[in-house]
Amino acid sequence: MTDFFSGIEPIKFDPAAQSDLAYRHYDPDEMVMGKRLEDHLRFAVAWWHSFVWEGGDPFGGRTFDRPWFGNEMDLAKMKADVAFEMFALLGQPFYCFHDVDIRPEGDSFAENTRNLEEIVDYLGEKMAAGGPKLLWGTANLFSHRRFMSGASTNPDPDVFAFSAATVKTCMDATHKLGGENYLLWGGREGYETLLNTDLGRESEQMGRFLSMVVEYKHKIGYKGGILIEPKPQEPTKHQYDYDVATVFGTLQRFGLEKDIQVNIEQGHAILAGHSFEHEIATAGALGILGSIDMNRNDYQSGWDTDQFPNNVPEVALAYYEILKAGGFVTGGTNFDSKLRRQSLDPQDLIAAHVGAMDVCARGLKAAAAMIEDGGLEAARAERYAGWETPEGKALLDSDLSAIADRVLKEGINPLPRSGRQERLENYINRFV
Amino acid sequence: MTDFFSGIEPIKFDPAAQSDLAYRHYDPDEMVMGKRLEDHLRFAVAWWHSFVWEGGDPFGGRTFDRPWFGNEMDLAKMKADVAFEMFALLGQPFYCFHDVDIRPEGDSFAENTRNLEEIVDYLGEKMAAGGPKLLWGTANLFSHRRFMSGASTNPDPDVFAFSAATVKTCMDATHKLGGENYLLWGGREGYETLLNTDLGRESEQMGRFLSMVVEYKHKIGYKGGILIEPKPQEPTKHQYDYDVATVFGTLQRFGLEKDIQVNIEQGHAILAGHSFEHEIATAGALGILGSIDMNRNDYQSGWDTDQFPNNVPEVALAYYEILKAGGFVTGGTNFDSKLRRQSLDPQDLIAAHVGAMDVCARGLKAAAAMIEDGGLEAARAERYAGWETPEGKALLDSDLSAIADRVLKEGINPLPRSGRQERLENYINRFV
Amino acid sequence: MTDFFSGIEPIKFDPAAQSDLAYRHYDPDEMVMGKRLEDHLRFAVAWWHSFVWEGGDPFGGRTFDRPWFGNEMDLAKMKADVAFEMFALLGQPFYCFHDVDIRPEGDSFAENTRNLEEIVDYLGEKMAAGGPKLLWGTANLFSHRRFMSGASTNPDPDVFAFSAATVKTCMDATHKLGGENYLLWGGREGYETLLNTDLGRESEQMGRFLSMVVEYKHKIGYKGGILIEPKPQEPTKHQYDYDVATVFGTLQRFGLEKDIQVNIEQGHAILAGHSFEHEIATAGALGILGSIDMNRNDYQSGWDTDQFPNNVPEVALAYYEILKAGGFVTGGTNFDSKLRRQSLDPQDLIAAHVGAMDVCARGLKAAAAMIEDGGLEAARAERYAGWETPEGKALLDSDLSAIADRVLKEGINPLPRSGRQERLENYINRFV
Amino acid sequence: MTDFFSGIEPIKFDPAAQSDLAYRHYDPDEMVMGKRLEDHLRFAVAWWHSFVWEGGDPFGGRTFDRPWFGNEMDLAKMKADVAFEMFALLGQPFYCFHDVDIRPEGDSFAENTRNLEEIVDYLGEKMAAGGPKLLWGTANLFSHRRFMSGASTNPDPDVFAFSAATVKTCMDATHKLGGENYLLWGGREGYETLLNTDLGRESEQMGRFLSMVVEYKHKIGYKGGILIEPKPQEPTKHQYDYDVATVFGTLQRFGLEKDIQVNIEQGHAILAGHSFEHEIATAGALGILGSIDMNRNDYQSGWDTDQFPNNVPEVALAYYEILKAGGFVTGGTNFDSKLRRQSLDPQDLIAAHVGAMDVCARGLKAAAAMIEDGGLEAARAERYAGWETPEGKALLDSDLSAIADRVLKEGINPLPRSGRQERLENYINRFV
Repeated sequence: MTDFFSGIEPIKFDPAAQSDLAYRHYDPDEMVMGKRLEDHLRFAVAWWHSFVWEGGDPFGGRTFDRPWFGNEMDLAKMKADVAFEMFALLGQPFYCFHDVDIRPEGDSFAENTRNLEEIVDYLGEKMAAGGPKLLWGTANLFSHRRFMSGASTNPDPDVFAFSAATVKTCMDATHKLGGENYLLWGGREGYETLLNTDLGRESEQMGRFLSMVVEYKHKIGYKGGILIEPKPQEPTKHQYDYDVATVFGTLQRFGLEKDIQVNIEQGHAILAGHSFEHEIATAGALGILGSIDMNRNDYQSGWDTDQFPNNVPEVALAYYEILKAGGFVTGGTNFDSKLRRQSLDPQDLIAAHVGAMDVCARGLKAAAAMIEDGGLEAARAERYAGWETPEGKALLDSDLSAIADRVLKEGINPLPRSGRQERLENYINRFV
Repeated sequence: MTDFFSGIEPIKFDPAAQSDLAYRHYDPDEMVMGKRLEDHLRFAVAWWHSFVWEGGDPFGGRTFDRPWFGNEMDLAKMKADVAFEMFALLGQPFYCFHDVDIRPEGDSFAENTRNLEEIVDYLGEKMAAGGPKLLWGTANLFSHRRFMSGASTNPDPDVFAFSAATVKTCMDATHKLGGENYLLWGGREGYETLLNTDLGRESEQMGRFLSMVVEYKHKIGYKGGILIEPKPQEPTKHQYDYDVATVFGTLQRFGLEKDIQVNIEQGHAILAGHSFEHEIATAGALGILGSIDMNRNDYQSGWDTDQFPNNVPEVALAYYEILKAGGFVTGGTNFDSKLRRQSLDPQDLIAAHVGAMDVCARGLKAAAAMIEDGGLEAARAERYAGWETPEGKALLDSDLSAIADRVLKEGINPLPRSGRQERLENYINRFV
Repeated sequence: MTDFFSGIEPIKFDPAAQSDLAYRHYDPDEMVMGKRLEDHLRFAVAWWHSFVWEGGDPFGGRTFDRPWFGNEMDLAKMKADVAFEMFALLGQPFYCFHDVDIRPEGDSFAENTRNLEEIVDYLGEKMAAGGPKLLWGTANLFSHRRFMSGASTNPDPDVFAFSAATVKTCMDATHKLGGENYLLWGGREGYETLLNTDLGRESEQMGRFLSMVVEYKHKIGYKGGILIEPKPQEPTKHQYDYDVATVFGTLQRFGLEKDIQVNIEQGHAILAGHSFEHEIATAGALGILGSIDMNRNDYQSGWDTDQFPNNVPEVALAYYEILKAGGFVTGGTNFDSKLRRQSLDPQDLIAAHVGAMDVCARGLKAAAAMIEDGGLEAARAERYAGWETPEGKALLDSDLSAIADRVLKEGINPLPRSGRQERLENYINRFV
Repeated sequence: MTDFFSGIEPIKFDPAAQSDLAYRHYDPDEMVMGKRLEDHLRFAVAWWHSFVWEGGDPFGGRTFDRPWFGNEMDLAKMKADVAFEMFALLGQPFYCFHDVDIRPEGDSFAENTRNLEEIVDYLGEKMAAGGPKLLWGTANLFSHRRFMSGASTNPDPDVFAFSAATVKTCMDATHKLGGENYLLWGGREGYETLLNTDLGRESEQMGRFLSMVVEYKHKIGYKGGILIEPKPQEPTKHQYDYDVATVFGTLQRFGLEKDIQVNIEQGHAILAGHSFEHEIATAGALGILGSIDMNRNDYQSGWDTDQFPNNVPEVALAYYEILKAGGFVTGGTNFDSKLRRQSLDPQDLIAAHVGAMDVCARGLKAAAAMIEDGGLEAARAERYAGWETPEGKALLDSDLSAIADRVLKEGINPLPRSGRQERLENYINRFV
């Protein structure tokens, strides 16, 4: 046992607690729509923000003072010890990592691989001893300077090769640890300037890379999901996986829309000019909804702020779309959320997760109540009712000439009907 | 002859002119890369901004005082007279219209159709007498209140029917007038709130609608292009044709990516978080580049400002991507640009077009000079040269395991190379 | 009695109501922090959005179908009848207007003045008969084409004169009707392009204009507040009253910071890159907090959407800052909120206000509970406690040399302490 | 001599050069409006971007490989050697620094001060030997973790003290090196969340701090300018020096508007929702224009990109406002511009400055030509001519009643006149 969280007791569900280190709304065993709340939400803690991020920003360096900072295997194991101690305090069912979060950085692919294998064994022992499961693993193909011009989309084929090899080892690690999904975030798959970029060529490289991942999954018999996480920009000026609709177009182009799903992040949705619920609903409609990165973007900041979620009405709308799409299968709610850099204390780290889990629990329960009440879906059904009539159904099988004849003959001249937006918003407010 | 432009002479190419009503850079007959400048640029004037828009904005009404404002056929014809007088002054080769721009609004589909047919004949006579050709026609399915909740994506099938019938008449009109393209802009194909919207159903409706358009094109033997114009939002909170990549995804989904191309607007690109040249390059790479709406969006305003272009370096980058993609075939440069509402005078209208045409001419000539110089493409070729080696070519046919083996065996550890962005930007500045 | 709202009963406080036309949270008589809820919130209905706006947007015209639309005095009176019928249904204590909202537009200043006087008498009778009071009146100096280049900042002194004369009549009207405030929103006091603008001259004109307003207030013995409403842009590219801090600078420059306060709008705060609570807190700190325009801006839309508020946590933060600043004196909560243009029905108009009033009631009660609990202020006091020590107090009276000596001598080397942001956010979530 | 720039010759003015390492437009001795071009532009190189920044971004670490990276005095001197070698190559007349750019970071204020003094002597020798002059010096009060919650606005008075002491030493250093200005950028003077912030208290602290700086300037007899650099956000969510108008309000509040001027940065203007020329014109109108940080912000990125300028038309508008305001006195054109992180080579660093200096030279010469031509000012004078008539002049001395009487009596009913925006934009395009 490290002493990092000394004095902090495991977090209990206690609506009447005085302390802020208690769940007021998240009772894992509460039954909601016939399923345990824990099994709906499938919370995961993200290794990178909670244990790796040092508190820096573009104008200042490390603010956090963590005993495990450094690039040694011993420190990596201490980090893992602390992580599993936090998991024990929170009791969440999953966690997520990038390779570079859990292992020291080596000087070569060989050394990286050895380091990864060693730490994966170490994590495996901890998981066997009762720790949470792995929601997803991924490879960090964006931080090291070798990736500065992209990973699979790099102008240098050696970087493509290095990236492919690295993904292979990370898929192996995820498979070994029983991860429910393997994820790809193409943080450098994009460009800083079109002037030096061959868009067409790079998208071909990316498509082939994705196909290799799917092929390898089948080769090793991995049964988990493959996820892509869209983001429009940052770090690059433009990223190819801009948003859900763009990713869907890419998947179709390479025949992968049945094999890969999306992991949607609130902050990335905002940066792309969408709401979180829009991206989830779009993925639901296209059949590629996989998982979510739950966080919050500051609407007044033009970059990815990755804050812990704190607005219940917004979170409720997101879970409403998830429940409507059938809920999570292999996916879950990963807190891709980081402390503000002024939040220095271990208590801040615990409290941030506790507050966020409560916000999500409130949101999901409100969404479930709306689903069960049925008011929103009844209004929607009424609004589109015309399409369920014989005339409505026939319309899509017709053609422009026939329709024009009919409009002329029948003097069709439709009158608008109220969209009732404010009343529907009021309806939502009864539940949140 | 009306007297609206009285005192204004036809605009001549005269680099040394004292007046601002002269082309300083646009000589239609100048040969550029083996083609007349006019045939590269294929300028079109947009009926709506130049002759229909009244100068209103969300906080104020009509500022322009035009004798043809009103909803009578006589006034529509006066408007057409003035339009062709302006075309004669400018000498541009094309124009564009929506049905509602050129005809009075009727009380029914039947009356709309009669009005359209009458005015189309009137325009046809003027075109036969030497006026410009039609770059594209389109149906306005967004201004009338019946379309407030969408056209093809409306919850009411009668609105779908009315829209389909209207598009049929507009395609007929475009075909009759020899239009080079038929265009669709889905300004209301989107939503104000997800709460009352069935995304999946609406996208199916839209896909079927697009297919009907393509089917009808073949039925009537229309040989022009079919164009979709992406826009992310405004008037709606979200529009389905968000950007080029999104439209490509939709086209693939409905098997239409060979039948429909995009018409890209600078202002819409900006609203979607892209540069104009990004959208053009994306369309070029995906093989769906059709035409452009040339204008300028104010980077400090969060809505579509549709200003006349005035920044030569930006315009040059756009034309560079167009030339790289092979130049316009059926498409062209439509000025989807409107006067500022304080620019009240006929001279403002003429001068705005003259200035914009000069800006485009400078931009295209700079782009052509860069193409001919070859510096940018040489740098790009050098950057990706590794992919042209045997090892590079073989890489995309390999798989993750084999690649990992090779990286391990050969100790591949790529070093980053400069992207040279600033030097490439300096290069551009030699030409603009 | 008109029949516009036929079938709708006066809205009652009834937390268990089945209908959505009931207040679930707003009980005007509920005592909060020793004051009636109604007296805290001081709700006002805005004439322009509720009775004048036709449902148009930049791409479409009128969607609403109201029997009083038109420019006749009879219609203006019918509009007033309907307005007071709605006020009777809602029971809110205040309303607000622009001159052009309530009177027909005349062809001259003289006719405008006669129309205004006639309708003011009509409103006065209705108010005497038990209608709500006037929170503020204002002059619309932005919709008519004469104001297209500004009102007080117009390049044409005749427009300045017309504007000044109009404001005089509107201040008279506000005074006569016992309005609690007179407001100025400079929607055209700004520019479309710097190229034709003399910033320095225009700001001098504006400063003098504001001074004239204050002088006239004293001349006629008007005791209400004078308010400026900041907005950064829209309709213009740039407006001089950009945000609260900018307005404060202008007021100081012309010696008016004791005479004029601000009316802060959520949507305008967002457009200026701020949160609503930031603008309120800034005004509170500067001593110029007057009143608020309560609405909601869509974070994904780049223009002023003026939606009814619906997010309780956000609204609670705004009222927290208002309560901390001492609450409203002459000001109040004006719903500068408009229906979505698809919300066609009278029920939509009522329900939108009912829902918004409930959201505000929930927000204010949560804010009051936090004030009474004191947790936030205790944390703040602890954070700044060092400044209350003798050393802290002395520091601001010192100078750089003396401080440097002391830092050197005492070896001052401060350690950072946690800002505890997430824990404070969790605290808020206990109350909302 | 180090060998960092080996092979690169001093940059010469040579419009016909084949190499891109030549000035094509910047001839320091060219006479423009009666002054040498060098004396107009007063270029400065920024130490931090060119010699300190490592190429990191929020998702990746150091990409640059510079032999002087590290925290030793020897390395700091090597960095200075390289810097002055670059200055010799470029031949620009000024440079700028933060204390932390030039000295190693110590463990205490005392050590920092000793380090600063040693390196200042070293720089002084180099300057005496013919290097460029110092445009401004400044203290970095934002990178070290002690400043994470602000410098002068910190909740901890010890941080205020540490900051004050540091500024004292930096003002001493600037004074000793003959710096033309001393600058303050309050990168952490703001907040991450209002929840833990006392806006009123913090602004008082900041005002007192600024006053101390002015007092100390007079105490030591420093004759240079004192500059504040506005920025709206980043690193913080909100910064108090939001934009020029906000800073002006603060200066007035503390009686400092005659003592402090602004240093305006293009990227900061953009982040605040303004154009660069707007901020310059505002400062000019308010009499507080001091200096500029010349760079370029990516309009599609929501953070400060600090790119080298490359758009001549935009730069021309900025210099037009500077020339109109009388040109620089103590200020100049500081390149607060950094290489893209993929631009690894020494040639990139030189070429970026060369290209930027050429862009500025073109911009300034175009601006000067417009000033000399007088077309823009003539149009402006004509537009406001009414205010120069006796009636116009008298108007501002009148009052609302008298004006209303006159409007009524004379039947004043102004007609709008064209703002001619497009024609003015065309005019600009003749010069750029």
